[in-house]
Amino acid sequence: MKTVKVGLVGVGTVGRGVVEVLQRNCEEISRRTGSQIVVVAACARDVEKATEFLGPEVKVFNDPLDVVRDDNVDIVIELIGGTTTARTLLLEAISLSKPVVTANKALIAECGNELFAQAAANGSIVAYEAAVAGGIPIIKALREGLAGNRIDSVAGIVNGTTNFILSEMREKGMSFEEALGDAQRLGYAEADPTFDIEGIDAGQKLAIIAAVSFGISIQPEKVYCEGITKLTEADILAAEEFGYRVKLLAITKRRTDGFEMRVHPTLVPDKCVIASVDGPMNAVLVHGDAVGPTLYYGAGAGAEPTASAVISDLIDVIRLQRANAAAYVPHLAFQREHLSDVPILDMGEVESSFYLRIRVRDEPGVLSDIAGILAEYAVSIEAMRQRESNSNDEGVDIVIFTHKTKESSINDASKKISALEAIYNAPARLRIEMF
Amino acid sequence: MKTVKVGLVGVGTVGRGVVEVLQRNCEEISRRTGSQIVVVAACARDVEKATEFLGPEVKVFNDPLDVVRDDNVDIVIELIGGTTTARTLLLEAISLSKPVVTANKALIAECGNELFAQAAANGSIVAYEAAVAGGIPIIKALREGLAGNRIDSVAGIVNGTTNFILSEMREKGMSFEEALGDAQRLGYAEADPTFDIEGIDAGQKLAIIAAVSFGISIQPEKVYCEGITKLTEADILAAEEFGYRVKLLAITKRRTDGFEMRVHPTLVPDKCVIASVDGPMNAVLVHGDAVGPTLYYGAGAGAEPTASAVISDLIDVIRLQRANAAAYVPHLAFQREHLSDVPILDMGEVESSFYLRIRVRDEPGVLSDIAGILAEYAVSIEAMRQRESNSNDEGVDIVIFTHKTKESSINDASKKISALEAIYNAPARLRIEMF
Repeated sequence: MKTVKVGLVGVGTVGRGVVEVLQRNCEEISRRTGSQIVVVAACARDVEKATEFLGPEVKVFNDPLDVVRDDNVDIVIELIGGTTTARTLLLEAISLSKPVVTANKALIAECGNELFAQAAANGSIVAYEAAVAGGIPIIKALREGLAGNRIDSVAGIVNGTTNFILSEMREKGMSFEEALGDAQRLGYAEADPTFDIEGIDAGQKLAIIAAVSFGISIQPEKVYCEGITKLTEADILAAEEFGYRVKLLAITKRRTDGFEMRVHPTLVPDKCVIASVDGPMNAVLVHGDAVGPTLYYGAGAGAEPTASAVISDLIDVIRLQRANAAAYVPHLAFQREHLSDVPILDMGEVESSFYLRIRVRDEPGVLSDIAGILAEYAVSIEAMRQRESNSNDEGVDIVIFTHKTKESSINDASKKISALEAIYNAPARLRIEMF
Repeated sequence: MKTVKVGLVGVGTVGRGVVEVLQRNCEEISRRTGSQIVVVAACARDVEKATEFLGPEVKVFNDPLDVVRDDNVDIVIELIGGTTTARTLLLEAISLSKPVVTANKALIAECGNELFAQAAANGSIVAYEAAVAGGIPIIKALREGLAGNRIDSVAGIVNGTTNFILSEMREKGMSFEEALGDAQRLGYAEADPTFDIEGIDAGQKLAIIAAVSFGISIQPEKVYCEGITKLTEADILAAEEFGYRVKLLAITKRRTDGFEMRVHPTLVPDKCVIASVDGPMNAVLVHGDAVGPTLYYGAGAGAEPTASAVISDLIDVIRLQRANAAAYVPHLAFQREHLSDVPILDMGEVESSFYLRIRVRDEPGVLSDIAGILAEYAVSIEAMRQRESNSNDEGVDIVIFTHKTKESSINDASKKISALEAIYNAPARLRIEMF
């Protein structure tokens, strides 16, 4: 049996998960690949601790580049995160024609275009299934499983932390702060949760998803990101009353004039399959022109779900390593020379239906003032209902569902509504998506 | 740009779907593959009609083998169904080292072992994503996307006809016969629906799923099949009262002593994602040891969803065609020499929790008789409730939920209960699965 020698850069939670799954499933993996996978070198900050875990046969270095350059290493697994050392070591591996498997979404989002160009020039492979939605093989589905389709849109719950928080808020009637506290206690959220709750993590994944869906370069800087920090129980409960759930969705859509890329809390009808995705789970809904809607559900994070994606990539790479480069799946699903430069649309250009909740003084004329302003900006109302406030706060809530309207119109109308005298707060505003 | 010349055997609904999607997405597919795909030959019963549809540049034959043998044809797409002519033409294509893409589940279920052996011996590829769950790339997920895992179980809604019927029965309170009539009117069920409603279609798909999950040969004859024809509204409603939905599931599980393969109506908790899969849609839930549960949802049938899978396979084949055979994904996910002969377990050996509904005369002693018989066969009761019958029929329903018990014990106990004097019917009996 052939032996494949792997260099593991990063022996933290995920790195240990990879080693453990490789060991536990070594027989199963040999049956699949006809090869034996052996970790021969690794890199860790604490060399002693890593050696204790990995055993004395594994050479443990301090410098990641030593792993890459070790003549013994055939394939590199990068699990250190970040975009500096990780970038350097990927470039080095590519220049040595060693395939790399990585779980580093920030690296792929920020430096993927450069890395893939280098890899293509060198006939090398960078595999990154684990960078998006953890154990769900969504990159494979988009690049290969749905390759017969023109992908029209993708909408995903790709951040488990925020999905857990939203589930807690709905199920237990918690405030955002309480639910965040729970998430931190349970290890679903980090001490500094900014990256997750502001939608930045989801935005990076979305930029990668959009690239492989449409054949465009990776453009994380073009993603509109709106997190869940301003979401209130009142909105979650009002949404539920009207038959909706609130999810932080990462959405990308094809339009004739460009592509939308946006992350924001979204109302989805509660009968949709994606609405039933609760807790820290992830799900990605893909619309292909031939297949229609398909959905992929599973754990989006965690040591072993991530290890699942890393090892599946490793098996792909082992299989393809000795084939010529024409047999590789293109890094961004489409041939490099056919990547498109159709622009990402400005958020103001995006059209959605909206949910608005406006706390007003309970007095005559307010409703007609609001309706008048919406009409002025050509925002057409689908439903409007006055809703008793649950709290002891003053005033009543007016909940409005609009027809499809341009983001810029709603922004202008909201500003004008906020200036009305009988209004307590700027309108709470959530986009609605039907699937 | 390279040109890939395809021979299309079968120009029916799916064949036309394939041609239409290939034409509509030709630019997108060229961007992905760097190749142009052209249908150069086809086979149809009505040559004139097919020529009218395909245009004069396509050679249309009457004999499928002529398409396979046409020197111009690089890759064969088989869409005629059945296991006789289809088998012959696949063997011929394999012997000529022409890759084949097929949507024929009966063929793969019945003849896959033979075909894959031949293909492996000839270094050829038989691609069959479209044979299972239509447009959902589940074969790819099991063979590649989850390759790092030891797959422990798979449970799927893989027959859209029966899922549509069950959804109608639940949502509209219809009888099985009424819902079947609806399905036939809407084109979801055929004039002779036996194959679908008796679970045979699901069983064939299950045999393929089990093979690629565990690395065993395809054994459709070992699948236990129980259809939905005996299911009543009473059971669907009772299940709902207790927080369950009834789904026709195709289930395969790894046990230390063998593998389970079974198709039967199943109670699943209504909070599971798979419980929310309604209408003609399909979904497959996979448990991997590392990734945990993942679910794949989409259209399981129809011309364009099937075309999606066929064309995605075609693109895979184009990419791999010129690579050496080590780069191919093994037909059954595992290397041929490592296929396992661990046995499929007899249905009597399977353990489940059960739902029982027994119509009895409303008189003292009946309940204790039933409980006594269950105890005699070591069937332990989790919950028992008397339930008013909705209809004007005589008697009352006793609904029992059991703890896990062997199928053979429930069979024996049911038989003995049926013989009691105060019983109107043999117990209605459904298995329960928690996910």
